[in-house]
Amino acid sequence: MKFARLRTAQGPRPVVVSEDEAYDLAGFLGDITPKTVGLLDEAAAAAAGGRLDAVDLAGAVFEAPIDRAGAVIAIGMNYAAHAAESGSAPPAAPVMFLKTPNTVAAPDDPFEIPPGAVKVDWEVELAMVIKRRAYRLAADDDPLSYVAGFTVADDLSERTYQLEESGGQWSKGKCLPGSTPLGPWLVSPDEVEPSALRLRSFVDDDPRQDSSTADMIFDCATIVRHLSRYLALEPGDVVLTGTPEGVALSGRFPYLKPGDVVRIEIDGLGGQTHRMVGAGPA
Amino acid sequence: MKFARLRTAQGPRPVVVSEDEAYDLAGFLGDITPKTVGLLDEAAAAAAGGRLDAVDLAGAVFEAPIDRAGAVIAIGMNYAAHAAESGSAPPAAPVMFLKTPNTVAAPDDPFEIPPGAVKVDWEVELAMVIKRRAYRLAADDDPLSYVAGFTVADDLSERTYQLEESGGQWSKGKCLPGSTPLGPWLVSPDEVEPSALRLRSFVDDDPRQDSSTADMIFDCATIVRHLSRYLALEPGDVVLTGTPEGVALSGRFPYLKPGDVVRIEIDGLGGQTHRMVGAGPA
Repeated sequence: MKFARLRTAQGPRPVVVSEDEAYDLAGFLGDITPKTVGLLDEAAAAAAGGRLDAVDLAGAVFEAPIDRAGAVIAIGMNYAAHAAESGSAPPAAPVMFLKTPNTVAAPDDPFEIPPGAVKVDWEVELAMVIKRRAYRLAADDDPLSYVAGFTVADDLSERTYQLEESGGQWSKGKCLPGSTPLGPWLVSPDEVEPSALRLRSFVDDDPRQDSSTADMIFDCATIVRHLSRYLALEPGDVVLTGTPEGVALSGRFPYLKPGDVVRIEIDGLGGQTHRMVGAGPA
Repeated sequence: MKFARLRTAQGPRPVVVSEDEAYDLAGFLGDITPKTVGLLDEAAAAAAGGRLDAVDLAGAVFEAPIDRAGAVIAIGMNYAAHAAESGSAPPAAPVMFLKTPNTVAAPDDPFEIPPGAVKVDWEVELAMVIKRRAYRLAADDDPLSYVAGFTVADDLSERTYQLEESGGQWSKGKCLPGSTPLGPWLVSPDEVEPSALRLRSFVDDDPRQDSSTADMIFDCATIVRHLSRYLALEPGDVVLTGTPEGVALSGRFPYLKPGDVVRIEIDGLGGQTHRMVGAGPA
């Protein structure tokens, strides 16, 4: 089942797609938030039962598929070739860092490059949205049973802030407003094989990243289980699973500048297109 | 003016203290949240105008002074002597890392040490709660005009997770549930001189940290202005300003174990007492 939040003049409208037909979830859920994300299975059942109104997706503009994410948790260096292009050895355990929740943005909104941000970089990533609290998972717990669904994220990063002005703590270059475009679709785990998805990025239609989640060092289940040892994942939290090689940090491509258009996509989850805007270098 | 949230059987009750008398803010604000934290000045005026009901503070149990913090932003290595005891040089710019919002806890609640967490450490810190959105402050903006008030925080840290299992990103050791006890009081900036406050910590009444915010490398105004270059601070965000020397990481004191009682206090802001609980090493 696929879920999304559509932009309307009356505010976001949650929808579910069942057998190629979209249905309005506003009456059932209100919105897709940390408080309601655990009800998506019931919402899907209501759609299958014919109890919801159909919605026309023609011309739809998407919001991020979760409103008010509580935490945005990211895994760094989770593809060996990206670790190498970043000058690092593959990590022995998942490397976790955090983004502020206010970085989450609609998938196709423009991204404002502020004056002075001269090393803005793209990072296509498979993302998970958490369905129920996950803390200290037991050995026989299925980590993916804590996941509401999978979606697409761009972990937009400013490398000067992340690496040169940070004292080594990456979050400083990961928190510009709007720097986590998320969506369009939230796809339930029964419809996704998260360990074999092609993911790609483009700048002005020139290819940048082109890899598969099969190349992840730590897979989605391992990430959820591992994180649950260190923190409690909460409903509505977003977990980014790392980016493959092909970013500007490698030195092979220029950083983003106002006017550039970034497109990212993951098989079965859809794609995002966001234009870089701003006044340019200060 | 001092604000707090009291624990009651009906849920948290926000109060304001004006001229040694406490007044109920529930009818005026509902609760102190990211949405209402910008109204505290008006709440204080209502108290001064005699329009609120008095509250008896005898036997009060405190919640954290802000409900549902959006982001918990922390500054590392902000006291030179603590940087030295941690094996680091003083940083050239504020070092920022993040804690998940679900770490925020009541100031006097017990802290659960999970099995395997054998290097839990205390860190008394002066904390700020943000009043209004702060992004890219101009040179003539007063950073403290974006601050609703100051409070006390314990940045409880697990050093194995932070330093040995993290790949260098500290957040992994900073996010155990309840690891940011906050409060009791939120004191407005007009009643605090944040650059000259004695701050202390004790374990079972034995002194540990005893310093002054005068020893901060970067003061509160500098921190807010600096952070606003990298992210948008939002109403209700909590900013921890770093801890002085005297933590267990120094090697001079043992790490915390179940049964230990941590007490921290900052002049003019009050104190916290939290007992470590848990089954002990796994």
